[in-house]
Amino acid sequence: MVDILHRVGIESSANDVYKALTTREGLAAWWTNNTQGESKVGSVVKFRFSAGGSEIGGFDMKVIELQPAKRVLWQVVDGPEEWIGTKIRFDVKQAGDHAIVLFKHQNWKETVEFMHHCSTKWAVFLLSLREFVERGTGHPAPRDVKIHAGD
Amino acid sequence: MVDILHRVGIESSANDVYKALTTREGLAAWWTNNTQGESKVGSVVKFRFSAGGSEIGGFDMKVIELQPAKRVLWQVVDGPEEWIGTKIRFDVKQAGDHAIVLFKHQNWKETVEFMHHCSTKWAVFLLSLREFVERGTGHPAPRDVKIHAGD
Repeated sequence: MVDILHRVGIESSANDVYKALTTREGLAAWWTNNTQGESKVGSVVKFRFSAGGSEIGGFDMKVIELQPAKRVLWQVVDGPEEWIGTKIRFDVKQAGDHAIVLFKHQNWKETVEFMHHCSTKWAVFLLSLREFVERGTGHPAPRDVKIHAGD
Repeated sequence: MVDILHRVGIESSANDVYKALTTREGLAAWWTNNTQGESKVGSVVKFRFSAGGSEIGGFDMKVIELQPAKRVLWQVVDGPEEWIGTKIRFDVKQAGDHAIVLFKHQNWKETVEFMHHCSTKWAVFLLSLREFVERGTGHPAPRDVKIHAGD
């Protein structure tokens, strides 16, 4: 089992970061504008992505754990085969005037090429989270920073 | 042993990417403008970083393997304790009009918080490599994209 890891520091309260990770409006402002569902333990939040105006897929996340201003844990219940059963975890802590986000996309079965891609793309979206929380505007899909032609 | 993984697609030839990874001018244009040494097997390339005008450290990389337009492999011989002995590997392949870069920073002993930080920062620098090769201008340190206040 292998993990994708990231860390960003956001000039904000841990609670504001937690809100961006646990409200539909927050998630839609940094990850993908097509976000549906409610962030409650046991519920499923659906993230969808488009290209050229057509939906090209996405991820369904079951909310496993929520600790206000501290932790969000999701399990992937639908999406690309390599993602199903993996877990996505955000640990947030306050350090002075910054909220530190430790991110893990855990339990990949193999270090496939797609895992390399997803690691870089997660960095892009976590920087979008940082922009959104600090300045009010992120770069969610489909306005996300591309790391390959159109992707 | 755990690895940092990334993947970017660059609209260019694999050879142009290889040049950006194996010349002092290329490396200085996307990673850090303070790059010294020669990229030859057995040589050491030194990467240094500054903050507020003072040098704050860096990495010494021994060049282990060079396969033109295909692979660059370095071993870290000096730098932060967590980096010493780790390897940094760039595999490049041509896919149509794009060069695909598979990046690995291999053999970390533990998934410490610093490893999370370095993973996100590598994504930032690989996107700088992409910008430099595609458009001629990257964002090497000290003009690198920050992922935390001043860092």
